[in-house]
Amino acid sequence: MIGNDVIRSPRARVHVIIAVFAEEPKTMSQTAKTRVLTGITTTGTPHLGNYVGAIKPAIEASQDPSVQSFYFMADYHALIKCPDPKRVQESRLEIAATWLALGLDTDNAIFYRQSDIAEIPELTWMLSCVCAKGLMNRAHAYKAAVAENEEAENQDADKGITMGLFGYPVLMAADILMFNANKVPVGRDQIQHIEMARDIAGRFNHLYKGQHFVLPEAVVDDKIQLLNGLDGRKMSKSYDNTIPLFAPEKKLQKLVRKIKTNSLEPGEPKDPDTCTLFQIYSAFAAAEETASLREQYANGIGWGDAKNQVFAYLNAHLSAPRERYNALMQDPAHIEAVLQKGAERAREEAAVRMDRLRSAVGLGRFV
Amino acid sequence: MIGNDVIRSPRARVHVIIAVFAEEPKTMSQTAKTRVLTGITTTGTPHLGNYVGAIKPAIEASQDPSVQSFYFMADYHALIKCPDPKRVQESRLEIAATWLALGLDTDNAIFYRQSDIAEIPELTWMLSCVCAKGLMNRAHAYKAAVAENEEAENQDADKGITMGLFGYPVLMAADILMFNANKVPVGRDQIQHIEMARDIAGRFNHLYKGQHFVLPEAVVDDKIQLLNGLDGRKMSKSYDNTIPLFAPEKKLQKLVRKIKTNSLEPGEPKDPDTCTLFQIYSAFAAAEETASLREQYANGIGWGDAKNQVFAYLNAHLSAPRERYNALMQDPAHIEAVLQKGAERAREEAAVRMDRLRSAVGLGRFV
Repeated sequence: MIGNDVIRSPRARVHVIIAVFAEEPKTMSQTAKTRVLTGITTTGTPHLGNYVGAIKPAIEASQDPSVQSFYFMADYHALIKCPDPKRVQESRLEIAATWLALGLDTDNAIFYRQSDIAEIPELTWMLSCVCAKGLMNRAHAYKAAVAENEEAENQDADKGITMGLFGYPVLMAADILMFNANKVPVGRDQIQHIEMARDIAGRFNHLYKGQHFVLPEAVVDDKIQLLNGLDGRKMSKSYDNTIPLFAPEKKLQKLVRKIKTNSLEPGEPKDPDTCTLFQIYSAFAAAEETASLREQYANGIGWGDAKNQVFAYLNAHLSAPRERYNALMQDPAHIEAVLQKGAERAREEAAVRMDRLRSAVGLGRFV
Repeated sequence: MIGNDVIRSPRARVHVIIAVFAEEPKTMSQTAKTRVLTGITTTGTPHLGNYVGAIKPAIEASQDPSVQSFYFMADYHALIKCPDPKRVQESRLEIAATWLALGLDTDNAIFYRQSDIAEIPELTWMLSCVCAKGLMNRAHAYKAAVAENEEAENQDADKGITMGLFGYPVLMAADILMFNANKVPVGRDQIQHIEMARDIAGRFNHLYKGQHFVLPEAVVDDKIQLLNGLDGRKMSKSYDNTIPLFAPEKKLQKLVRKIKTNSLEPGEPKDPDTCTLFQIYSAFAAAEETASLREQYANGIGWGDAKNQVFAYLNAHLSAPRERYNALMQDPAHIEAVLQKGAERAREEAAVRMDRLRSAVGLGRFV
């Protein structure tokens, strides 16, 4: 999934949600569509791992008229770990341009920036008022940060931890509950976020005596494909081992050549199943193409030849969207207009929901 | 000050800010007015203590054309301690009706509900991302709640503590920083809130390399008049010892008769300076009227006579605004319109500020 970026250490992570709403939400009886909600943290440049693990399936879903997808740039989340305005701003533009270049259907999908939906921080505050602090004490990302301070023998176990990092699961709950998720397929590392959203929603329903929120359920999805990076570890900005999806041709070639392989000589048979190069190729190639490279591995293809073949394949498949991406990056006004349209559609639903919630907690209008 | 209401115990309080901006804010060069900002938590019914300590001086300030006052109903704060929608909703209406009945000049003062300003929770999230969790660990209200749990030998020191209670000083910082306070006169018990807002503002300025916020400074104001309640302790909803400002005549009489006095008989001289009844009278009466009652105390006035006199005085002075109050309570549409106008004026400034802040952190528009 996108957004497995590290806060200060590989153990303290802030994840972004990928929530697939498998059932029709109760409040949206006008549509019987399945809902998909995906948030993307806006601190990095999209790389091959993001594409395979999240962008590609999401864009495919956006083209399915039976699916209502909500895709948002989680830029409020980005502030937690990235107090670098230039980076956050660039990343938002790059991510938007990437999704559009790859064919996101924005007539069907609702594509927006979290920071354009003022209802999200408002709901976050409302949920804060029913969320036990003890729940946040047990959040993985927070506990990892504390453990790191303890290891470093810092006197203050909370050193370097902001209220944003401590409370981000509440923001994430608002992201999910705003659009009334029920079944939420997630990776194993994100189960806790859904459980927390569930806990908060249940507490709210109890305190305010009503079914204001559907309780989201985590459905573990182990099929999400994780790509390895240059060094053989999971491809992640935090490991500095990524291949940007739309790196210029020369750069792409250079990076593919840098992918870590072993020291087997040409002529010696090679194991594709432990090979990052092969893994990356097979994530993009069709079954028969993958089978052909597998055979070449068995026949002892040299690493140089294999890398040339993978580069040529990636470059051929990425050059058309890369061209669109470059054109979009030159036209921020167009991207802005697309995102404004998305925000408007998201707020249509968010505004109605917040109106109801305000009344439910005693903050409604007087007439 | 208003809003000294108790969360779960008299030691764990959430206060509301009374912020007087003594200097012209740097960003508002179009006006040279002194600024006054007051928040009122919306969980109670205004009582005599609120009137004397906060409402009266605030309304006087609202009528001074050299002062720009911002008065808001702190209804997001109310959610922290009052998950009773009916109470919160009623309290908001009662407070608005009270301030209007007493002559708040809403052409001059900006009178609004916090929950109508979507920029406030948004700024709260932004500030959360720069606010050290350790700062909140040291907040008086939180520490008092933890101490209470420890005393009760609860295994979980955070039992019953929500993220709202834990993080409310960040919301309060947003209330203050949104309108760029610099000098902030407060009661002693609220110094910490201003220091926290200052700390957060300084951290934000540092991280985002600019003078985005004026650092607020606490100026201790010991002149604020605190009224005692029926039992002689400070008048406060949490002690259940209040006299509602607009109690019907009969009820007012009954309550004045309930004010605790001592067992001295008629004819015996009485000490006005330790007497709640006298304190209440003198908070309302003119100097010569107070002097006259003081003399009657020395001459041994009976408690029944003294109470009748205080009741008659209060009733005479409160009956006209009480009539206006009752009429306003029957016309919520009018109150709503006044508050919408106030929200619009507050958001004019809040929207400009948030636009700038969004750009400063990397959440600006692309064009």
